[in-house]
Amino acid sequence: MPEIIIVGLGPGPVELLTLEAQRVLSLARQVYFRFSAHPVFEWVRKQGIECISFDYIYAQPGITYDRIYRLINKALIKVAKREGQCVYALPGNPYVFEKGPRWLQETAEPEGVSITITPGMSFLEALYIELGVDPEEGLQILNAARMVDKDEYPFTTALPVLIGQVGLPIRNRPNEPETNLRLLAQLLLRHYPPDHQVTLVWSVGLPSYQNLRRSVYLGDLAHQDNFVKNLATILVPALPQSVPKRKK
Amino acid sequence: MPEIIIVGLGPGPVELLTLEAQRVLSLARQVYFRFSAHPVFEWVRKQGIECISFDYIYAQPGITYDRIYRLINKALIKVAKREGQCVYALPGNPYVFEKGPRWLQETAEPEGVSITITPGMSFLEALYIELGVDPEEGLQILNAARMVDKDEYPFTTALPVLIGQVGLPIRNRPNEPETNLRLLAQLLLRHYPPDHQVTLVWSVGLPSYQNLRRSVYLGDLAHQDNFVKNLATILVPALPQSVPKRKK
Repeated sequence: MPEIIIVGLGPGPVELLTLEAQRVLSLARQVYFRFSAHPVFEWVRKQGIECISFDYIYAQPGITYDRIYRLINKALIKVAKREGQCVYALPGNPYVFEKGPRWLQETAEPEGVSITITPGMSFLEALYIELGVDPEEGLQILNAARMVDKDEYPFTTALPVLIGQVGLPIRNRPNEPETNLRLLAQLLLRHYPPDHQVTLVWSVGLPSYQNLRRSVYLGDLAHQDNFVKNLATILVPALPQSVPKRKK
Repeated sequence: MPEIIIVGLGPGPVELLTLEAQRVLSLARQVYFRFSAHPVFEWVRKQGIECISFDYIYAQPGITYDRIYRLINKALIKVAKREGQCVYALPGNPYVFEKGPRWLQETAEPEGVSITITPGMSFLEALYIELGVDPEEGLQILNAARMVDKDEYPFTTALPVLIGQVGLPIRNRPNEPETNLRLLAQLLLRHYPPDHQVTLVWSVGLPSYQNLRRSVYLGDLAHQDNFVKNLATILVPALPQSVPKRKK
């Protein structure tokens, strides 16, 4: 049965690849990458393995995420059927802040192509260390794109919130003049005071792929567009006074 | 300057070690393990590296977590000062559901011993894949031990909750007849109906170190003691009707 092996590349440094991901990548004849802009891309290429990226699909003007995923899935299934196996690499953990692998599974399995997942470490794990946030103290994880897509989004101000994918272009609303960041800032200001301090973390991309961070007042968040051109995450601390009383 | 290198061993299978963790472990002359009951312990030992575990400290009857950490920290600092370097390995990600490394840092640095962290993948990342839960859809992460330690704990029933460290012995309250699990079930039943279905996931431990899971009604959760002898996690789905209305 033809097979697509989805490999999680981890949060960036090659050293954070898992042994299993390394093995799958190093044994492949060719590897398809969602983006070439990940340190593992060059590392695999230097091993003499053919590396093909889908950068050109993302670069098409006005393309929606739905169309991007349809094109990538079609290409991967075609390769798997022709070659018997296709290795597809994407950043982080293939099940964290990712719908691609699920959609691929739904499309591939009816066509007789099986899917295997090789885990990677997500950006969340790297941020826990970097921001000194331990989820055991109580943490909410949310996606900015989903939050701004609705009028209101459920969460509690009594626990800290880590909001991912801040600053992602709103591809499914190409005529939307507002950025994701501005809409998110408006939403948060309905729940927190403008002087609430949040931490913005973003990757500077290749070659260093380093994370930078900046502490800003929520009231100034909408104007931080310069810092969130690449994927960014916001940590919003809890409002301590809103801890609910015990119900009797 | 003497140094303690803390290494995260990942969620279990050796294949989920990071390349960096593998390198640090393989270059060590000896490695201290919090527990020997992790697949990486035997894997390191088979490489001819001396492996020492702190199992004997955990086995002392009635010992509290505070005392366990004090004893481990003292031992590691002593080794680092004597040998110049000490490698300390613990399961998962050293910053996730972990206070040990922070306390070690606070104790070691005033004594002139520096701390380096080598990340690992936490059990959370493995569960996202296993349970098919993507945190981008909105997720709260909580620690059962902290939840039952207070009369009430803030969270919202409008987002799913992943509750870790269910079934851990309540070491700091040795005279407490109730288990962590029973207290947690009581707390959750104040917020969800008894027929709310939750998923219990637990590790069977060595040698297979496999995760098993079981779907139970919240009303039956208190009686699942047999399944949570090892560390367990509960996934509590959201109550859809509790999504708040937009504030005007």
